[in-house]
Amino acid sequence: MYGIEIDEQYRCCNRIHNPEDIIVKIGSAEIGGGHFCMIAGPCSVESEEQIVGIANEVKKAGADLLRGGAFKPRTSPYDFAGLKAEGLRLLSIAKKETGLPIVSEIMSPRDLELFEDVDVLQVGARNMQNFELLNELGMIHKPILLKRGPGNTVNELLMSAEYIMSKGNRQVILCERGIRTFCEHTRNTLDLSAVPLLKGLSCLPVIVDPSHATGISRLVPPMALAAVAGGADGLMIEVHNDPEKALCDGPQALRPEEYAAVAEKVRQIRAVL
Amino acid sequence: MYGIEIDEQYRCCNRIHNPEDIIVKIGSAEIGGGHFCMIAGPCSVESEEQIVGIANEVKKAGADLLRGGAFKPRTSPYDFAGLKAEGLRLLSIAKKETGLPIVSEIMSPRDLELFEDVDVLQVGARNMQNFELLNELGMIHKPILLKRGPGNTVNELLMSAEYIMSKGNRQVILCERGIRTFCEHTRNTLDLSAVPLLKGLSCLPVIVDPSHATGISRLVPPMALAAVAGGADGLMIEVHNDPEKALCDGPQALRPEEYAAVAEKVRQIRAVL
Amino acid sequence: MYGIEIDEQYRCCNRIHNPEDIIVKIGSAEIGGGHFCMIAGPCSVESEEQIVGIANEVKKAGADLLRGGAFKPRTSPYDFAGLKAEGLRLLSIAKKETGLPIVSEIMSPRDLELFEDVDVLQVGARNMQNFELLNELGMIHKPILLKRGPGNTVNELLMSAEYIMSKGNRQVILCERGIRTFCEHTRNTLDLSAVPLLKGLSCLPVIVDPSHATGISRLVPPMALAAVAGGADGLMIEVHNDPEKALCDGPQALRPEEYAAVAEKVRQIRAVL
Amino acid sequence: MYGIEIDEQYRCCNRIHNPEDIIVKIGSAEIGGGHFCMIAGPCSVESEEQIVGIANEVKKAGADLLRGGAFKPRTSPYDFAGLKAEGLRLLSIAKKETGLPIVSEIMSPRDLELFEDVDVLQVGARNMQNFELLNELGMIHKPILLKRGPGNTVNELLMSAEYIMSKGNRQVILCERGIRTFCEHTRNTLDLSAVPLLKGLSCLPVIVDPSHATGISRLVPPMALAAVAGGADGLMIEVHNDPEKALCDGPQALRPEEYAAVAEKVRQIRAVL
Repeated sequence: MYGIEIDEQYRCCNRIHNPEDIIVKIGSAEIGGGHFCMIAGPCSVESEEQIVGIANEVKKAGADLLRGGAFKPRTSPYDFAGLKAEGLRLLSIAKKETGLPIVSEIMSPRDLELFEDVDVLQVGARNMQNFELLNELGMIHKPILLKRGPGNTVNELLMSAEYIMSKGNRQVILCERGIRTFCEHTRNTLDLSAVPLLKGLSCLPVIVDPSHATGISRLVPPMALAAVAGGADGLMIEVHNDPEKALCDGPQALRPEEYAAVAEKVRQIRAVL
Repeated sequence: MYGIEIDEQYRCCNRIHNPEDIIVKIGSAEIGGGHFCMIAGPCSVESEEQIVGIANEVKKAGADLLRGGAFKPRTSPYDFAGLKAEGLRLLSIAKKETGLPIVSEIMSPRDLELFEDVDVLQVGARNMQNFELLNELGMIHKPILLKRGPGNTVNELLMSAEYIMSKGNRQVILCERGIRTFCEHTRNTLDLSAVPLLKGLSCLPVIVDPSHATGISRLVPPMALAAVAGGADGLMIEVHNDPEKALCDGPQALRPEEYAAVAEKVRQIRAVL
Repeated sequence: MYGIEIDEQYRCCNRIHNPEDIIVKIGSAEIGGGHFCMIAGPCSVESEEQIVGIANEVKKAGADLLRGGAFKPRTSPYDFAGLKAEGLRLLSIAKKETGLPIVSEIMSPRDLELFEDVDVLQVGARNMQNFELLNELGMIHKPILLKRGPGNTVNELLMSAEYIMSKGNRQVILCERGIRTFCEHTRNTLDLSAVPLLKGLSCLPVIVDPSHATGISRLVPPMALAAVAGGADGLMIEVHNDPEKALCDGPQALRPEEYAAVAEKVRQIRAVL
Repeated sequence: MYGIEIDEQYRCCNRIHNPEDIIVKIGSAEIGGGHFCMIAGPCSVESEEQIVGIANEVKKAGADLLRGGAFKPRTSPYDFAGLKAEGLRLLSIAKKETGLPIVSEIMSPRDLELFEDVDVLQVGARNMQNFELLNELGMIHKPILLKRGPGNTVNELLMSAEYIMSKGNRQVILCERGIRTFCEHTRNTLDLSAVPLLKGLSCLPVIVDPSHATGISRLVPPMALAAVAGGADGLMIEVHNDPEKALCDGPQALRPEEYAAVAEKVRQIRAVL
């Protein structure tokens, strides 16, 4: 139907063999099968004050999960690479204060035990085909948020999900966050048609990250609403209390009040669909 | 603000020199400045029965304009290239029957007089940089629907609009219809972030054509709704009463009842925004 | 063999129906079927002194044809668009002085009679799918240099050649000049594998324009040599006596002495192949 | 000069701070600084007979290094993933028999001790931004062959080299092996202009892999010659004694006699340059 052969290559995640939507549960939140999930927080955890402050703000605005980077993959070896173990400790404090489950990126199987209190492990776009990492994450019992690489196809994303699922872990959330094209203004080009495509091809929930996809905070609200209207099961949005001073990706972060306004519109569009 | 210099190169269409939205009027329909416009109809005009039938259906579903191709640019010289003058005559009949203004593609200045009864002249994606055609269309007094070429940037699209506007015709409607990328399932990749980008950079209305952008009818409804939520000023959707037998682009056409369902959802999302 | 169906869609240019290479003759020069051709000259004709001076230089360096733009398609309506008819007159003077046949771009069938003294008519990348222009050029008796659009596939290029050939004119030369990609340094990305692909699929000669493909004069010599080693039937290289003051595309032009050095290396590589 | 700021971000590999070419020595072979290197062998090691047979053939044809995959990253978890430790053991046998140094891909720092007898460690395209792996490889004393990811820019490739070099290991060889574009025939699009670009920007040797770049064996010889003429410091070419039965990537492999013919032409072009 979509020009893709959904055959044995996708035996765990394809829609034909698995007609029922997979619903991923994270604390009291659910995603997939009609359940929608809002994930918000800063690109990087910078300090206790920062992460707890933002966590309180996004909770107030109705977010279901808190995101925050502790291990940060950076193109340059000379850029800020995150607070690492200390960052995870601060995330735990924010989780305890607000009750929000937390999402954070893992870059190596070696770090797994540091992530004990993390509710959803994120595989970053650059590691989408780090098969050793995927294999290890297939053997644990936690939801995995798998981001599409900017140079990767929809089929490759599904194959990477298949690495995780074929090892036993079926709690996989797919995330579209922009692809590499010739477009000159945005960091990447949001491929929104991947959302209905992925939902037609597979049984997995699909969320959208408009912050990384555009790299421009002004474009985040319209693309967030577009993603919801296009059928996404959730959004991951970067929120920072002081974008100008953010240690990473400030220009794409929303302020808490901007996030709250988007979240309200998202609820209204969800009500229409 | 977007990493683009809005300077003298865009003196007619840029937002800074022209802070007010341009509103294009087509009969009783308006587009831009908060006014939204639904354009629907077949890829090609095939017969009087076909075009009048579809025109009645889309009018019933609330469409503001009827589209229909008479001069069809085709990649291959051996493919059906449209009914040409006869196609325009049949469009006129449909216009008279339904009262819907009509949109049709013009490929050469030589054909201008044949288009007398056509309300909006469309410049197709392949002719976006046919500067001779753009110059001629700058000297007439009709709205021009300018489609972005699949290999063209947002800046190039604005420059092509500038060709038309700098000759005197300010009634230009921009249309995003998908770009060339490495994605394997869809005909093109819908670049939806171009919509808020273009609306921030220029004063022109921007519509989206989800039919050509995806090439797959199942993806048209979600991408149509996404476009509306993302801020588009209108939609151009292909509708055919018998997609399997369409002479051109059948796989991307909606049936009239599918179109009516999308149009209803569009109105609901518009009401929320 | 290449994953392309060479069928009736390519009846005039495909290799299976037309196993013999087409050899295009231009004055005493030949291209295709083992014959190699060097085309050189400025992006734009600027003055008699400039074009005659450059013509003499490139002739001395062994060029077979002189190129020079008189009608210049420009992204912006406010940029220098060429000397038009006067530019063609100056090209004729350079032709008379040096005996070099001339190549120049035609943008509209309306201008055809102005091109009487032009030996090869160039269809620019932006007009590769201007089917009205292609149809007209199919009815004349002169070689056509058809440039690949930066957003167009190899199949589309062949289809555009087919437009010309199916009308009767079989003297078509294909030209690869770079495609749109995410690469950040070069104007376009030279797709050199298109050369052996096109020569395997069709019977037409294929040349390469490393100047437009890279947009950077330092990259022109290595890409020119690469094109020759990769099997190209010719090169089109921009040469200007004063690149800093060129009215168009100066940064990609070679000085005459740089061109002469490349031309010498090209001959040596040709001798090896 | 190329529109890139060569500043502190590239302190180890940039050309300005490091005007001398880095020459990487591998046994008696050298690469960079005018030294050229031919790497050949199968995609995957399949058996002792296969790898020793091919090693003898490519040695006879003048290859300087033997390549062979033991740990194979595959898009699908259900595809053949290499013989792993056993594959490395067979490579060692081929090395002992022929005296050829060996190149093989490493996917995880955990496997480092298995690679004791491997002369050059390859980082595959999918792991170009696996920063944990890069950091570890920066702390060993062996040459690293770093392949450009198909969705990665030239700047990102240099930054990944910088990860390795900033940890102390300066023996890095860059490899262009094709990028993701809209082109429909080839597996990837060989970006040959990256070769002179990288050599202008950095002091590192740059080789080309025309086998992965094109995915079509018929295109390998012309692209190999083009790479040499374009200034590459070496070639990595897949050779298989029975491509139809290869367990991986057979359609892009040359037979030994085809490889010998290319190698001879390469020497002739090198002599001209």
